[in-house]
Amino acid sequence: MSASLTALMQELGRAARAVSPVLANVSREQKDRALRAAATALQRDKKNILSANTRDMHAAEERDLSAAMFDRLRLDNARLEAMACSLEDIASLADPVGRVLAEWTRPNGLRISRVAVPLGVIGIIYESRPNVTVDAGALCLKSGNAAILRGGSESLHSGAAIHGCLVEGLREAGLPAACVQRVPVTDREAVGLMLEGLDGAIDVVVPRGGKGLIERVRREARVPVIGHLDGNCHVYVDRDADLAMAVAITLNAKLRRTGVCGAAETLLVDRSAPKGHLETLVGALLDAGCAVRGDDTVKKIDSRVTVASEADWGTEYLDAIIAVRVVEGVDEAMAHIACHSSSHTESIITANDATARRFLERVDSAIVLHNASTQFADGGEFGMGAEIGISTDRFHARGPVGLEQLTSYKYVVRGSGQVRP
Amino acid sequence: MSASLTALMQELGRAARAVSPVLANVSREQKDRALRAAATALQRDKKNILSANTRDMHAAEERDLSAAMFDRLRLDNARLEAMACSLEDIASLADPVGRVLAEWTRPNGLRISRVAVPLGVIGIIYESRPNVTVDAGALCLKSGNAAILRGGSESLHSGAAIHGCLVEGLREAGLPAACVQRVPVTDREAVGLMLEGLDGAIDVVVPRGGKGLIERVRREARVPVIGHLDGNCHVYVDRDADLAMAVAITLNAKLRRTGVCGAAETLLVDRSAPKGHLETLVGALLDAGCAVRGDDTVKKIDSRVTVASEADWGTEYLDAIIAVRVVEGVDEAMAHIACHSSSHTESIITANDATARRFLERVDSAIVLHNASTQFADGGEFGMGAEIGISTDRFHARGPVGLEQLTSYKYVVRGSGQVRP
Repeated sequence: MSASLTALMQELGRAARAVSPVLANVSREQKDRALRAAATALQRDKKNILSANTRDMHAAEERDLSAAMFDRLRLDNARLEAMACSLEDIASLADPVGRVLAEWTRPNGLRISRVAVPLGVIGIIYESRPNVTVDAGALCLKSGNAAILRGGSESLHSGAAIHGCLVEGLREAGLPAACVQRVPVTDREAVGLMLEGLDGAIDVVVPRGGKGLIERVRREARVPVIGHLDGNCHVYVDRDADLAMAVAITLNAKLRRTGVCGAAETLLVDRSAPKGHLETLVGALLDAGCAVRGDDTVKKIDSRVTVASEADWGTEYLDAIIAVRVVEGVDEAMAHIACHSSSHTESIITANDATARRFLERVDSAIVLHNASTQFADGGEFGMGAEIGISTDRFHARGPVGLEQLTSYKYVVRGSGQVRP
Repeated sequence: MSASLTALMQELGRAARAVSPVLANVSREQKDRALRAAATALQRDKKNILSANTRDMHAAEERDLSAAMFDRLRLDNARLEAMACSLEDIASLADPVGRVLAEWTRPNGLRISRVAVPLGVIGIIYESRPNVTVDAGALCLKSGNAAILRGGSESLHSGAAIHGCLVEGLREAGLPAACVQRVPVTDREAVGLMLEGLDGAIDVVVPRGGKGLIERVRREARVPVIGHLDGNCHVYVDRDADLAMAVAITLNAKLRRTGVCGAAETLLVDRSAPKGHLETLVGALLDAGCAVRGDDTVKKIDSRVTVASEADWGTEYLDAIIAVRVVEGVDEAMAHIACHSSSHTESIITANDATARRFLERVDSAIVLHNASTQFADGGEFGMGAEIGISTDRFHARGPVGLEQLTSYKYVVRGSGQVRP
């Protein structure tokens, strides 16, 4: 690794560390002013950003990226407007810093409160979507955290132009540019240095991207990670499900958008469901253009069904493909989920409250739903405003990661001279 | 590393993983029955436990352990009674599992709640104190977590005897013994295997012990850690402090018990404090038998004061020694703390509310106190019942780690057929 890269990255770390205590005590008003000024700058600099994006798109053509990557990378007026809206939305959310999470008084008169504080310095490592620059930078700023953003090499120019708007917002609000820094080089080694924590400068790393990135982070990170693994999500249609509801939810969970982590990948159907339910569900999926990979029972229903292999139960297709299995009631459904799920999101469709309660209590996933689509797995749909991702970890944050999840806390204790006996 | 050790540890991991979903859904009554039965077993087996402890003490004599280690290792009737009480206390605490942490309804009718769930499988790695076996095992059980306990080799026989009582409690309550397992061997390699997570079986590691252990954990852990670093705690006596209160709190913070992580290690005194205040504080410490290492100003006060070196500001003495420095008001005190503190616990003594507020807001430590002793840094004193330690991390848990901090959460979403537009 070059000495100059190391020096560059250490300097980013030092600047973030230095600004972190300042940022922790900035008022909500000043943070929101920076966010709104950044939104204005984004709208004003549209032409500049779109031309930077064109350069990235040209470079991408030469590198023969996939169509999906192209789509993620591409910016247009509507997408820029959405980014500006996102900044306005985050500005309108309550300040997560300084919230009193709990308070109580001890028999000796000590008044104790648990107060939310920022995590400190957050490193965000992401891939091609340029809007992550805005979302991650804005969420970190609003939650009082210094951010070090490391976007993918594909979005080099777009990322620089968008980051320029965030810095402009900070400047107009009288905040140091070091609040939201961007790694200005594309060396892969920069990621390694961030995962080691930049000599203690980084408190938490948030990766956003595909499996390759996530696995590298898991392997190399020496600092805490807010992690986002697979979304191998399940819909279980119980014997007591309303058929029309089951069909509507299954189609929506699978096909509304197939590329999101909350998309359903496996459908489990109770063997004791009324005759015809399984056939209707499978037929509706096939007719909607979804490939179905089924177990032996499912295979017999329709010639378009192919045979599911063992690997299918563990696959996150992110495509118009679904695995379908017949199970002996809710307990076998839960056993299947416990064995194959990535603990992201699972839904039960049933009119039986006792069965639903059993499922909601016992299925150990970040999000469990009753009579609703798995595609609701989203910070916005949860009413949390923007999200930086969905955590499948159990530690610190689980489920959608919004402003509150980017805070820690401290205990403030007020006394009148108490000493401990 | 021997294949048999690896196989043994993997088997502990598999058993813990298998029991974890069962334990997550055990009722409070059943968990408390196990805890109370374990307390009874501890009292019934006193003779057996004390004779096991005698064997450990004999072995320790041959290994030439320090007096402090001897004291930690030693059991007697009173300490056994305290352990039984601790079990009863934990049984009397509310169940942290299933608490509804938040709930709200979305405009589309979805009812969302965030519900506390266990972390899963917790590995606890500790040193000589046999009572940690009881506290850690009981806290994990009550919070629905499967525990794998790895005590120090010094307490091999005591630990086995005490663990036997916990298992007896589980048996009497009809719970599997695998809920609280103990590593039955003393190989150092067992710790390494736990830090790697036992093939994904361990969700979190909690180390309790000296610097050597903590540093090894930081270096080798591949799973999340609830960490307990140094307690380099500060008392700042402001110009507006009441002198009598400042003396009482300083003596208590330093000398009540010198070996605990909440003991004060540095006293900062405002240069603008009234004439005589600094002299009274330093004299009181010296007269109470505390060694004082001071800066130039402090050195001139009393011939018993020795000169503090730069290293003293960063030293956790855990002894009757204190470093004393004169600072230019609260801002220089906060700058000193930001530079040297381990972010554990700091206290300001002042009658000035604005100065206190500034200190409480800006000092970034797990616990900040106003007009109270740093020795209150303790889960029991916070009213949290037992604690498994005090975290100086910002991630997941900060400050005293009790039952609530040993839980994660999941989102339960109840709908009536909603699909996402």
